[in-house]
Order: sequence, then structure tokens, then C-alpha cells
Amino acid sequence: MADYTTFLTKEDFSGYEDPERYQKEWLPKVEAYRKALAKAIDPAYTVTVPKDIDTLVEEQFNAVDYLYKKKLLTPEEFAITDSSATSLAAKLSSGELKAVEVFKAFAKRAVIAHQFLNCAMELFTDEGLERAKFLDEYYAKNGKTIGPLHGIPISLKEQMAFRGKITHGGYVSKITNVTPEHGITTQILEDLGAVFYIRTSQPQTLMHLDSNNNFTGLTRNPYNMKLSSGGSSSGEGAVVAFGGSAIGIGSDIGGSIRAPSAYSGGVGLRPSTKRFSLYAGVSSGAGQESVPAVSGPMTRSVEDVDFLMNHYLNEGKPWVRDAYCLKMPWRKVEKPQPKDFTVAVMWDDEIVHPTPPITRGLKFVVEKLKAAGVKVVDFAPIRTQEAFDTVNKMYNCDGNYKQKELLSGSGEPLTKLTKWALNYGDGSKEYTVKENRKLNVIRDQLRYDYNKFMVDNNIDFLLTPTYSNVAPVSENVYGWSYTALFNILDFPALVFQTGLFQDPEVDKWNESFKDFKYRSELERLELEQYEPETFSGAPIGLQLVGKRYEDEEVVAAGKTIVDIIGADLFKH
Amino acid sequence: MADYTTFLTKEDFSGYEDPERYQKEWLPKVEAYRKALAKAIDPAYTVTVPKDIDTLVEEQFNAVDYLYKKKLLTPEEFAITDSSATSLAAKLSSGELKAVEVFKAFAKRAVIAHQFLNCAMELFTDEGLERAKFLDEYYAKNGKTIGPLHGIPISLKEQMAFRGKITHGGYVSKITNVTPEHGITTQILEDLGAVFYIRTSQPQTLMHLDSNNNFTGLTRNPYNMKLSSGGSSSGEGAVVAFGGSAIGIGSDIGGSIRAPSAYSGGVGLRPSTKRFSLYAGVSSGAGQESVPAVSGPMTRSVEDVDFLMNHYLNEGKPWVRDAYCLKMPWRKVEKPQPKDFTVAVMWDDEIVHPTPPITRGLKFVVEKLKAAGVKVVDFAPIRTQEAFDTVNKMYNCDGNYKQKELLSGSGEPLTKLTKWALNYGDGSKEYTVKENRKLNVIRDQLRYDYNKFMVDNNIDFLLTPTYSNVAPVSENVYGWSYTALFNILDFPALVFQTGLFQDPEVDKWNESFKDFKYRSELERLELEQYEPETFSGAPIGLQLVGKRYEDEEVVAAGKTIVDIIGADLFKH
Repeated sequence: MADYTTFLTKEDFSGYEDPERYQKEWLPKVEAYRKALAKAIDPAYTVTVPKDIDTLVEEQFNAVDYLYKKKLLTPEEFAITDSSATSLAAKLSSGELKAVEVFKAFAKRAVIAHQFLNCAMELFTDEGLERAKFLDEYYAKNGKTIGPLHGIPISLKEQMAFRGKITHGGYVSKITNVTPEHGITTQILEDLGAVFYIRTSQPQTLMHLDSNNNFTGLTRNPYNMKLSSGGSSSGEGAVVAFGGSAIGIGSDIGGSIRAPSAYSGGVGLRPSTKRFSLYAGVSSGAGQESVPAVSGPMTRSVEDVDFLMNHYLNEGKPWVRDAYCLKMPWRKVEKPQPKDFTVAVMWDDEIVHPTPPITRGLKFVVEKLKAAGVKVVDFAPIRTQEAFDTVNKMYNCDGNYKQKELLSGSGEPLTKLTKWALNYGDGSKEYTVKENRKLNVIRDQLRYDYNKFMVDNNIDFLLTPTYSNVAPVSENVYGWSYTALFNILDFPALVFQTGLFQDPEVDKWNESFKDFKYRSELERLELEQYEPETFSGAPIGLQLVGKRYEDEEVVAAGKTIVDIIGADLFKH
Repeated sequence: MADYTTFLTKEDFSGYEDPERYQKEWLPKVEAYRKALAKAIDPAYTVTVPKDIDTLVEEQFNAVDYLYKKKLLTPEEFAITDSSATSLAAKLSSGELKAVEVFKAFAKRAVIAHQFLNCAMELFTDEGLERAKFLDEYYAKNGKTIGPLHGIPISLKEQMAFRGKITHGGYVSKITNVTPEHGITTQILEDLGAVFYIRTSQPQTLMHLDSNNNFTGLTRNPYNMKLSSGGSSSGEGAVVAFGGSAIGIGSDIGGSIRAPSAYSGGVGLRPSTKRFSLYAGVSSGAGQESVPAVSGPMTRSVEDVDFLMNHYLNEGKPWVRDAYCLKMPWRKVEKPQPKDFTVAVMWDDEIVHPTPPITRGLKFVVEKLKAAGVKVVDFAPIRTQEAFDTVNKMYNCDGNYKQKELLSGSGEPLTKLTKWALNYGDGSKEYTVKENRKLNVIRDQLRYDYNKFMVDNNIDFLLTPTYSNVAPVSENVYGWSYTALFNILDFPALVFQTGLFQDPEVDKWNESFKDFKYRSELERLELEQYEPETFSGAPIGLQLVGKRYEDEEVVAAGKTIVDIIGADLFKH
């Protein structure tokens, strides 16, 4: 396998780590944090893990299969946690379900998820239960729900400010940062009736499509514990796909909603920018607007993406409190008929060729779509390498100033993929404003050209891989060209599941691939990892992309496509 | 009077000007350009100017009064050109008016405007007439208009790319830049039926609230030719307020729609960003997104702002062709009742105190609003100095790289206010990305705080000066804190006329003002200029500001306010 360390020669990491200071000043705080997390696991919700975790990892344990086969929940708990948020909300509204019973079922499934997958950074099921009780009392007293999310258990990526709790964003230096108020999105969800009980893991720097951090380490994939749950919304990917929350809120600047959704077996939307409020939280991105981060929903159905976006935007109106957000309600867009839209397929972004399961997933979906009457054409990538180079420069063009400030604040050890991420673009070269503006001009022209291609050719959507592979082995994900392309373009992108899973017997390189010449060291690094046996059982998720601010159209078409392919993540 | 030159000590202008090269290589091109402009003045539309222009300037000639008193147009021409675009469109649609008769009336009034005010950079009334004829033929043949702007004469700021014509943006180095295609906004307006015939003046660099440039020199104020028409949409300000076009399209990054609208006696909207397409044209701003420029309408009525925004956005859909634009249709918002909204008044931004006519205008409007039942409160400025310092840094933080490139390309002489503008912020200090991001963080916090203030206090709108004074003497406008504040906040801002005009007998400094201590050299520079006699007859326009992306609400309330104060710019 190619050696990743050859890619880490440019950067000087001096001034980041300070082992002595970290051990003395910060590690005790981290240990206390870990203890608090362990202590917060309510035994009422736990199960017996069949073997020690290292063994399960080694055995590529499928925690989802185990959950169902061993019937770790009661039939009632399965019925609740395998319902869409949309249908739960209807039943909570009619009184058919109580918030407390819904909560307990999800809390149990979330704690089991955490036992296997290490997805939580903070658990507070006691507070969640109190909240659910309050909501039931409210309903009993008023004969109506408190809002459209009344009693819906929602998981939150840790970086989002939460009232009265630590918000560290994966940086040890922020371990004493107790945020006095909810962030605006959290407040809106609470105002609409959501129940909170888990804040989920993310990697150091938030810039890995993986999970490693000095608080809680790795988060594992629900379908194959040797693999990554993805990142940076690592814990959201795992807990949502495992069924431990009805809806999760992640964030995405290069693929951080989509990678964990695809890898872990879920659904996720990277909305167009400025529809979700990002105020307030911890990240390195303050003032960076060349490629802005977004928040968005992670679910087990496209219907629930629609449900969340609709209520969050139309009742939550984030623009009222956050002038950063666009006053852009969620439009009601009906599911299109198959004959009424055209999909262009990107089989290969010409940066990293997809592995066999991804190509199989694309072929499967394309065949189904064509059979259903959808017009499908091939898409010839437009300057993807330039886009990838440019977006990577945008991430780091402050010379890693903010990352360095946040990391060196504690002197914490840098993880492998942190070093990788600090090498993006031109590493710690500090750009001038002039140079940054030139990157923006490239971005704007790319955006114009992709849009023009779609408009001129009547292409409604692009269908692409989310990543060149299914879920990677933890700490071995280097490329994110398939997702970051749509961050730089700011096109809305929905990850959905094909319902297929990697199969080592089927997903071998085609015979002709032995003549394939790697087009870059990055491609070699990614593709030489692909040994079919390693990725056994990993979900095959894909990405559907629409025109900028046509989030609603993407979600509506996503529903049609999932109907066509017949993938239902609530059925096992 | 304070010496403006004391403010020009920081900057090194070497490398910009090259008199020898300019004289030899570029001046002949400029002279040919001027000749072409002079030749394009169709004698059929001209009038006899009563005295030479220098004398009229010296005499503070009121060209608007002269137009009416001397009846320079026929009653039919007055009736047409003193109609709103809204009503013209209805009459063109019903067949009551023909495009040719509408065009000829506006062409005549525009040419007269140019004779007095020097507002055109390019005239092509021959092409306009052909277009009007084509539209009449289309109507005769099809029994309907080609679109909602069928036959509406629209003037365009020169910097907007126009098919087959030079687009220079005020930079001599761009004098051979023939743009092959219309910009997207121009194309949309044409597709909707507009008639083009004049492209209007702008200052060198586009960064003055004034007009001086090496192509055509100064544009004059319609109401007092000694004064400036404003800038940078200088010619739009003059031609629209004079009645030479039904609607003008300007652009604004620091006040460039609002200053000329206010100074010249018109109405103008600086929309929130990304509603209008800016693709393509000439400016120094490519890739600069800390404080983005916007385009927007300049008119003689708030109704016509609504008319243009409605059709441009809802039928033009700029987001289809320009992925930079937001998919955000123009919402239909009814005029609010006076009792249904609250206005907070900024009597003084604490940077430059308003002069007597502006304070009188504010008092007049406040009294009228209160009498009508509008709730009016005082507004205590929030960190206006920080906002002003920050926005000024944002303009130049590429170290004036792009301006220098565009200016030194020809070595053209720098005008006084170009030197002033190149000194904004930290002048030619080239910021790093890190430093730029810090400015953005300040901006975002300001935006958050202003919005929060308005939301928490149920303030719907701010009423403020547009500038500390009425129209300034040409080349003597230094401060733009009142307008630039809403560029950095990205709040929509509508300039409207009070119907009042400066009166030297009335608009004297209050006796108490003699004790006023200037709070800065900028304030001294601005206020020491105020000799009442100089500004005789200048219109008193004000600014109404709403929350971000509540452009529709601002326009709707603007209609109510204009109804209350009874200012009708079509009546003389």
C-alpha cells in the first residue's frame, strides 16, 4: 500500500504539540470528561456486549444485524425506533404515542449504539426523559403538541453550542468552554418540541471524513465495526443509521454530513449554504466564506429530511434570529414522476476511480431508474481537479492559523488525519487577500459552468459516488473529491442508500483494472487499500446533487429514486 | 475648511500614473470615445442650452425647473415621461400607448438631461428606436406584449456588459473591452421587453459617491448644476431623476445606488445581496465577498422599484442562469397600515453629524409619520465607527491590487477622489487571509447585533440620512458612513425623497452648533463645507432600512411612507 506519510512532508507541525503541558494540564480534564461520559450511560438502557470491543472490531462485527437477531429491543421499541420521524410526529400529535415511550425506546437504542460504536461525546438521557415527561404533561394539559417536533428525539453534533454544557468541537483546548445558551438551531429545534439526550462525536479539527479525537477516540461503523462511521459528523452517522435517534443534525464543509451518512448506512442532506443557522458553536471556520460550512439533517429516510427541513425552516425561521441565514422558506415540491426528470451520472470524477461496490451501486441505480422511465445520461466531469485543488487551498489558506490556535491551546497530540488535513492545499502557506480572491474567482467560474451545463442540457440532477469507496478503515480516508466538489459549487447534495452492501465475493476489481494506471498518488493511496474482504457488509450509499438552492427539488427527486430502488432503512 | 490632502499622506501612488504612456497610447482612444459620444447625440432630441455649461454651473442652474418652465417637451411627452413605469407598462399592454411614442419622449428627455448634466457615457437612441419599432410590430402581429417590460425605456450603468459595445467601468485600460454578450441582468431586461438607448456615467474606480472620470468628467445635479449627481451610479442618478429614463439600473457597494438617488432627487433600492445578477461587467471586486456589490433599480417612485423587482425576479429568474444568485422570488407584500409598523430614527450616526437640511428632512418625516399613527422611536447607533472602519478595510484589503492593475493598465491620471478611495481602510496594506477573516467576524457580529436589536425591540425599519448632507459640491464628498453601514450589514435600503429641498434661508446651522466639537477630521472636512447658499435647491432624500432579505417589506413600507408625506416625483 502507498505510504500516507509521503504526503506529510511539506508541513512543519512544530508549535502544535506540547506533550508535557498536555499531560500535566489537559489530560486530567480529558480523563474527567471521559469518566463523566462513562458515568452518564444509564444501565437501564444498556445491553451485554458479546465480546470485548477489540475482538468485535477484528471480527468486523455487524452491530445492526446483532441488534435485530438478538432482539435487543422489545417489539414495541423496535416499532417506535423503526418509524420515520414524520410518522412518529403524527402519532405524537394524535396522542397515539407518548413522548416518554418514544424517548425511552430511542434512548435505549442510542445507548446500545454507543456501547458498540462509541458514537456519543455526551449522554444525558436523564434530561431527555424529564423533557419527554414535560411534553406529555403539556399535551395532557393543552390537548395539543408544543410544536411539530413534539417528542422527536434528536441527536446533535457536539460542536453545536448547547446551553450549560461544554462545547469543544473536538479541540481539547475548548474543554472548559461551557456555552451559556443554545445555538440558534438547537434553540429552534427545542422550541419546536425536540428532545435532546445525546451529543455526538467528531474528529479533531472537524476536517476528517473520519472520527479520531483525543476525547473519545474512534467511532465505528454500525455494519462493520472495523470500518469508520465517517466524519466529521461521525457520531451522527453512527447513531442515526443504527436507529438511536430519529433525526440527527450534522455539519458539512467537505463531506461531513454525506460521508458519515453514506458510510454508516443513512441518509443526509448537505443543504445549500445559509439555510441552516450555524450560530453558535466551535470550529476553525469563523470568517471563512470561500467555502462555508453548512448544517443539515441526517436521517434514515428522505421523507424525514423533508420533514425536518420543512419544520425547521417554515416554523423555525432561523433568519429571524440569525441574519446570516436566508429568508428562504422550504418550498413544497411534489415528488417528480420518473419521466419528468433527467439524471447525469458521474461514473468517475477523474481524481479517484470508484471501487467495485460503488460502481456496482451506480449501475444498479441507473438500471432501476432507466427501467422506471427516468432519463439518464453520462456526465463528463468539468475541471474536477481544479475544483479539488481550489477547495483544498480554501480550507487552509489562513495558513492554518485558526487550527493552530485551537490545537496548540492545549498542545494535544495531533492525530494522523489532522496532519493530513493540515496539509491540504498549500498547507500552512498564508495566503494574501489577493490570492484568496483569485480562488474565489475560480470557484465562481466553476459554479457558473456547472450550472450552465445543467441548464443548457436540461440536466436536473447529478448522480455520483459520495466517496470512491464504501466506508474506509478508520484513519484511512484521504480523498474527498466527490463530496468537496459540491461544497465549492454550493450545490445541494443528498446521500441515500442503494439498499446494497459490499460483498467480497462480488465486489472484486474487474480483470481489466490490472491495467489501470493510477492518475495520482492520492488515487494510489485510496485504491491500493481496496481488499474486498476488508469492507464486507459496508452499506453502498450514493449522492444526488441538484442546482444551487434547489434543495427541495433534490429531496423530492430523492424520494422518487428511493421509491424506484425500493430501499427502506426501517425494514430489516 | 479642513484640507482633504492631509488625508492623503499614507498612500504611495507611484506605479499608477504614467503621463507619457497615457498621452501617447490611451488619450487618443479616449478622445475618439468622447467624439463618438458627441456624435451620437441625435439633433432631433436636443434643445438649446441657455448659456454655456460653466456659467450654468456657476449659477447653480436648476435644470429640472427649466425643463418645465420652458416646456422643453410637448404636453404628450411630459405626460409619458411623467408616468410611472408601472402605468406605462399597463398602457403599452392595453395598446393605449405605442413603444415608439414612449421611446421618443424618453429619448428626448434623456438627451436633454445629457446636454445639461453630462450623464451619458454612451448614447444609441437609433438602436432604441429600432427596438421600439420591433416591439410595436410584435404587438401588432401577436396582439400582446413581448413581456412585462415591453417598451419600457431602461438606462444602464456603463459597467454592465452590453452586447457588442465597449464596457470599461470607468477604467481607461478597458476602453477596448468590447463585451460580446449582454450581462445576465441586461439580457433578462431585454427578454422582458426593455428598450435600451443610454449607458450612463460612473467615476474612475467606481468607488466615489461622485462622478469624475477620464472619459467624460463630471456628471451634474439636475436641481443645482454646481452640485454632484452622486455616484458611483452617477449618470443613473441624474438621468432617472431628470425623467430621462423610466427605470435605471445602478450598483452599490458603499452607497452607489443610494447616494445618486438621494442627491439627484430620485428613488433607489439597494437590495440585499445576490438577488440581482452582476454577471458580467467591469469592476475591481472579483472574488471580494466580505462586502459584496449589488445591482438594483433607480426610479422616481417606490411603486416602480416594486414593479422592477417583481418582474426582474419573478419572470426574469436570474438564478437560473447565474448560480451566484439566490432562488428567491419577489414576495408580494402589501403596503402596511401606519399603525402596523415601527420606525427607529438614526438622527446622527456619531461619525458625521447631519447638516441642517437633512435634520429638517428627518424631523419633517418623523412628524408626518407620527401624525399618521406610525410608531417612531429613536435609534442609538450600534458601533457605527467600528462598522465604518471595518467596511473601509474590506474595500481595500487586497492592497489595492485590482485597482492598481486596472488603473496602471493605462497610466491614466488619478482623480482626487480616486486617491481618497485608495486611502480607505489601511490603504494599500495587503491583508492576509487571517486578517480578512477577522474583519468578516466583526461584520457577522455587527449584523447579528443590529438584527437582534431590531427583533428584540420590534423595530421594523430604520430611518436614517443617506449622507450627512444633501448633494455635495462635485469632488467634495468624503464620508459614506450612512450608506456603507448597510453594505457591511447587508440590510436592504431604500432611498426616497421627502419632497423638500435645501433652502439657504432655512437650513442654517442652529445657534447651538457653534459649540459643536468635531469628533474627527472627517467630520470637520464634511461639515466645514456646509455653507447654506452652496446647496440651494438640492433635494432632501432619506434612507429607509429593513432587516436582511426583507427587501419586500422595505419597499412596501416605503410606499406607505411616501403616501403619508405626499411626495410625488412625477408632479412639478
